[in-house]
Amino acid sequence: MRSVILTLTCFLSAIILVHAQDLKSPDGDLNMHFELNANGTPTYQLTYKNKQVIKTSTLGLELKNDDKSLMDDFTVSKTENGVFDESWTPVWGEEKSIRNHYNELAVTLTQKETERVMVIRFRMFDEGLGFRYEFPMQNNLVYFTIKEEHTQFAMAGNHTAFWIPGDYDSQEYDYTESKLSEIGSKFDAALTDNASQEQFSKTGVQTALMMKSDDGLYINIHEAALIDYALMNLNLNESTLTFESWLTPDAQGDKGYLQAPCTSPWRTVMVSDDARDILASKMTLNLNEPCAIEDTSWIKPMKYIGVWWEMITGKSSWSYTNDFPSVKLGETDYDKATPNGTHAANTPHVKSYIDFAAKHGFDGVLVEGWNEGWEDWFGQSKDYVFDFVTPYPDFDVEAIHDYAKAKGVKMVMHHETSSSVRNYERHLDTAYQFMNKYDYPAVKSGYVGDILPRGEHHYGQWTINHFQYAIEKAADYKIMVNAHEAVRPTGICRTWPNLIGNESARGTEFQAFGGSKPNHVTLLPFTRLIGGPMDYTPGIFEMDIAKLNPNNNSHVNSTIANQLALYVTMYSPLQMAADLPEHYNQFMDAFQFIKDVAMDWDESVYLEAEPGRYITVARKEKGSDNWFVGNVNGVDPRTSKITLDFLDKGKTYEAIIYADAKNAHYKTNPQAYTITKKKVTNKTKISQLSAPGGGYAISIMEVK
Amino acid sequence: MRSVILTLTCFLSAIILVHAQDLKSPDGDLNMHFELNANGTPTYQLTYKNKQVIKTSTLGLELKNDDKSLMDDFTVSKTENGVFDESWTPVWGEEKSIRNHYNELAVTLTQKETERVMVIRFRMFDEGLGFRYEFPMQNNLVYFTIKEEHTQFAMAGNHTAFWIPGDYDSQEYDYTESKLSEIGSKFDAALTDNASQEQFSKTGVQTALMMKSDDGLYINIHEAALIDYALMNLNLNESTLTFESWLTPDAQGDKGYLQAPCTSPWRTVMVSDDARDILASKMTLNLNEPCAIEDTSWIKPMKYIGVWWEMITGKSSWSYTNDFPSVKLGETDYDKATPNGTHAANTPHVKSYIDFAAKHGFDGVLVEGWNEGWEDWFGQSKDYVFDFVTPYPDFDVEAIHDYAKAKGVKMVMHHETSSSVRNYERHLDTAYQFMNKYDYPAVKSGYVGDILPRGEHHYGQWTINHFQYAIEKAADYKIMVNAHEAVRPTGICRTWPNLIGNESARGTEFQAFGGSKPNHVTLLPFTRLIGGPMDYTPGIFEMDIAKLNPNNNSHVNSTIANQLALYVTMYSPLQMAADLPEHYNQFMDAFQFIKDVAMDWDESVYLEAEPGRYITVARKEKGSDNWFVGNVNGVDPRTSKITLDFLDKGKTYEAIIYADAKNAHYKTNPQAYTITKKKVTNKTKISQLSAPGGGYAISIMEVK
Repeated sequence: MRSVILTLTCFLSAIILVHAQDLKSPDGDLNMHFELNANGTPTYQLTYKNKQVIKTSTLGLELKNDDKSLMDDFTVSKTENGVFDESWTPVWGEEKSIRNHYNELAVTLTQKETERVMVIRFRMFDEGLGFRYEFPMQNNLVYFTIKEEHTQFAMAGNHTAFWIPGDYDSQEYDYTESKLSEIGSKFDAALTDNASQEQFSKTGVQTALMMKSDDGLYINIHEAALIDYALMNLNLNESTLTFESWLTPDAQGDKGYLQAPCTSPWRTVMVSDDARDILASKMTLNLNEPCAIEDTSWIKPMKYIGVWWEMITGKSSWSYTNDFPSVKLGETDYDKATPNGTHAANTPHVKSYIDFAAKHGFDGVLVEGWNEGWEDWFGQSKDYVFDFVTPYPDFDVEAIHDYAKAKGVKMVMHHETSSSVRNYERHLDTAYQFMNKYDYPAVKSGYVGDILPRGEHHYGQWTINHFQYAIEKAADYKIMVNAHEAVRPTGICRTWPNLIGNESARGTEFQAFGGSKPNHVTLLPFTRLIGGPMDYTPGIFEMDIAKLNPNNNSHVNSTIANQLALYVTMYSPLQMAADLPEHYNQFMDAFQFIKDVAMDWDESVYLEAEPGRYITVARKEKGSDNWFVGNVNGVDPRTSKITLDFLDKGKTYEAIIYADAKNAHYKTNPQAYTITKKKVTNKTKISQLSAPGGGYAISIMEVK
Repeated sequence: MRSVILTLTCFLSAIILVHAQDLKSPDGDLNMHFELNANGTPTYQLTYKNKQVIKTSTLGLELKNDDKSLMDDFTVSKTENGVFDESWTPVWGEEKSIRNHYNELAVTLTQKETERVMVIRFRMFDEGLGFRYEFPMQNNLVYFTIKEEHTQFAMAGNHTAFWIPGDYDSQEYDYTESKLSEIGSKFDAALTDNASQEQFSKTGVQTALMMKSDDGLYINIHEAALIDYALMNLNLNESTLTFESWLTPDAQGDKGYLQAPCTSPWRTVMVSDDARDILASKMTLNLNEPCAIEDTSWIKPMKYIGVWWEMITGKSSWSYTNDFPSVKLGETDYDKATPNGTHAANTPHVKSYIDFAAKHGFDGVLVEGWNEGWEDWFGQSKDYVFDFVTPYPDFDVEAIHDYAKAKGVKMVMHHETSSSVRNYERHLDTAYQFMNKYDYPAVKSGYVGDILPRGEHHYGQWTINHFQYAIEKAADYKIMVNAHEAVRPTGICRTWPNLIGNESARGTEFQAFGGSKPNHVTLLPFTRLIGGPMDYTPGIFEMDIAKLNPNNNSHVNSTIANQLALYVTMYSPLQMAADLPEHYNQFMDAFQFIKDVAMDWDESVYLEAEPGRYITVARKEKGSDNWFVGNVNGVDPRTSKITLDFLDKGKTYEAIIYADAKNAHYKTNPQAYTITKKKVTNKTKISQLSAPGGGYAISIMEVK
């Protein structure tokens, strides 16, 4: 499956002691200037088409229990330049082939007093800059503890930012749009509650951080290849408008335990004067290592439904009984317990989902709440919460397996860990073996609540090491992973394509917890999706949650057309149709798009994009001539104008356009949509109104 | 193997609201008085033959994040009395059958304001009192976090104590003998360095704490059945001479996460006017649950030698190469590394140990340093240190397995975890499977250095949960465990008899690290061994360590006769002959005792005992008529006088007496011993001089 076509690799080594050097992008638009300052501190700055993007910013790391940090007193002992250009084929993705093209500068720094060596490696792509710290094997720097990484990003102006609060444990926030200088004053209002959360600064924000300058530059700061290192947040100095890295600490407040030879993750700055370039960039993937899995034939995109939304809305329960104030696995006798009557993961009900999946061509059915332990799973700092293999009395694993198999549907496993990481690792082999036995190809894992070991955070080095362990061990068992509440991705799916999804942001579930902002989905592709696909769980058709649960007044801030568009705009090899079968049965004509839409692509063309306002993208189905277009819109009504010039010249296609009705509105009239069919060619122009919180979806099939 | 003969069980329930009640020992010598004080705080006091042992002391627990702790405002809502008397057969032990005989009082307390229920259960044996806190299932107390347990032990006088500093991570201290009132002033002098240690108070001490009152009472405070709870230290209030429990905190400073229904460990106070009763008591075992292992046929006592002392003394190395500043498993290429020439765990050398073991009838050979990773294993807070299955290039697992098998010797596995607990748990199944494959029946595990997860302690609830996990998982694989640097035992070997040993105190290795006090071994049976057997690794014949390593000036503070006696006085089903074969070859006549001495017993008779001064014990070999006697002596020369009245009447035996020579001395003349043979009967009296730091050992075989 994996082929790498190396078209040109050329490294030029220069043993010249220069204290300053420039690095340009292949197209010449970007220029990075590296320089050691008078203190021997490394600095860099970045321009795009001669406009300043990053002003002079310092680099370095502060060490713990060390008189001398890696902050200053450096000399340049070597610089190496290179050019790299290859194309590689992803196992799944937005494109059939991905070009990895950059110019490189590696600066070897030697600290005069300590003779310690640190390399800063810069890679300049057309879309932006990546750089990282490298620590070669040496005698004077072997084991070291990071007190803080001090990587600066000095912004050149008071940009507009689309940000969420920096946090050690939660990424599930709505985005706030403000000037950089307003972050501090708007910080508290940007906070919403979560099962586990801890902010560190009123000017702390998360990456990927999307910004727009007054002169029209789109700037995005994130990281790539976060392996065995703490996640980076950014903290803003409001007076200088300089961001600085702020790593996630461990239980002792330390920020990283390193052993040379090793490297930091890549720090990335993407820049363009066209917002579509940010969405189209594959820089984050390219900064990750090639695929580490030899045989990837078992990794397949999936479209699935699930016994899930009914619990999220409060219509049903994960738990089986209300008999006990608490339960203990292996001690609580569920067979003697009174069923609570609301437990959704029961065999007949699951079979009805399997029937629906089979009827409408879904690959899989997820079932949550199938296993013992849900009565007190959450918020108790409970160690032994689940064993991941023991079903409730009313969930017949064997019968469900047989039934699904006969219907040609795969079951999707659910492992809620309750953030009890040790407990999950103890059961991981058994749990994966159980999945192999009953033919579950993928697992949705969850990390709700505070991490155990207590004091650790979701995004500290310890827990990040765990997430990676779970992915790599899953690969041993040929299992695909969709981890929720895990660290936001940083392109690791290139190396481990069995990581087919993550939540790691505010997903659709929050539409049942009070709602998300209507323009949320016009921001996620600029932020969360920079690192990899999201299991956003779209496809909600019933926006009034009270119809499912009279005690829940939440409203889904989206139109049905917007929900359909998400299958195209939110790229993911894993897509759920999250609503209840009975709701789809009410709108079977609209549901047709969810049935038709592809999961994997040969080509993607970003047609329109403006963060917080709108995104329109067209994608060509893998191995077919079918195209699918999606448009999502922010709070203001807007007419999207696109040309279908991506279609093959000379061919005629039938387009089915699922759009907002004229009077549609995410709040007042979300279910008003129109479906129109028409013949189109590569000359066709489409002008389509999208409602507030609306959008449209188009399927385009060749007429043969 | 396991049989329980229940001779009498009788529980009398009394639903009477009494606020005070007494509980006597079966023989009537001990009396505990329970009473709620005016604040509704539970209190107890203890007398022995009408002498006060524990003055009125309060009981209770302080909770975290809770307005109301479990300290006061209680009423007695129920009391239950009972009598229990059964005998049970241990899988291995000092006795063929153990009698478990106690009177019980269970006081159910209800907190008035909160309606929370807590039971304090007291069990009174002839040798002492055990009590614990129990939290039944209830609605108002489900999950709770212990800020501190406040269990008091108010001493009735300024006793002489034999103590080591309270510590969250180390038990490897020499004992200090002082008045209670002197603990604070002698605390700093009692400290010695360790790879991981943290004290909490200048008046903090460890249990088992041995004391002697001025009026001749021997008092011992410890705990039993430490499961899923933090280890207890004791902190002394010097003005009131009251000890109070001081639990080991977690990384956040919390002391325990509990979920009702659950219990605390037992807190034990043993009392007698004869020190021998403390040594002979099986109270700690009796307070543990019966054996949890169905088939125990694979659990067998072992006598072993090992490739170990030569590394401890610095003669050889665990590591294979000096090439690298650090190593990474899977990345470091050991095949290309230069051997350092000192690596002891090489195939020919191990074979020579197997030869020696086979020749002299040893069951096993331990080899440390056999696996990759020892170059930088220690003190680096390194996560992935060992994988427990990859041998060094010069250690041929397969060949050594075949060679040992052909010689009828079992190899003993070594798992040094470097306290990287997560890493060990990740590899545990694979490591145990590797042991099964190569027929290793037992593992010596080690926990040197600070615990990972960082911030956790060796004796916190988190790590104690791990030690238990490793024991129980080992049982699944029919593996015996001998855990070093693990928490000191509390009788858990009754429930899990595959826990055949622990270090968990200052072992023989310290004789190569500067030496231990010559009376150390007259204290360990009163302290460390109260909870279970110790892998003390006796049998050192060459006391001048410089003869092994010119750079090590340490001296073994013991005579050869003392070393031999340890095989009897330090009861353990696992006994090492720790010195090098070449040293045994020099003293083959003395070595004969180590070859002859039994590992498992039908009967044990404590003949003489005084903590810090001397211990003399006779034991009858399991399933035979052979007896073995051991005497260890403190710093003053002493003549031990014993009568062999434990021998069968009318029979004649041959005794071989291995004793100190007249001029022997632990420091100046440790290798001077005499061996005499004589016929003995049950009327024989023996009067034998033991040198300072000396002792004697006797084997007694029937003449047929």
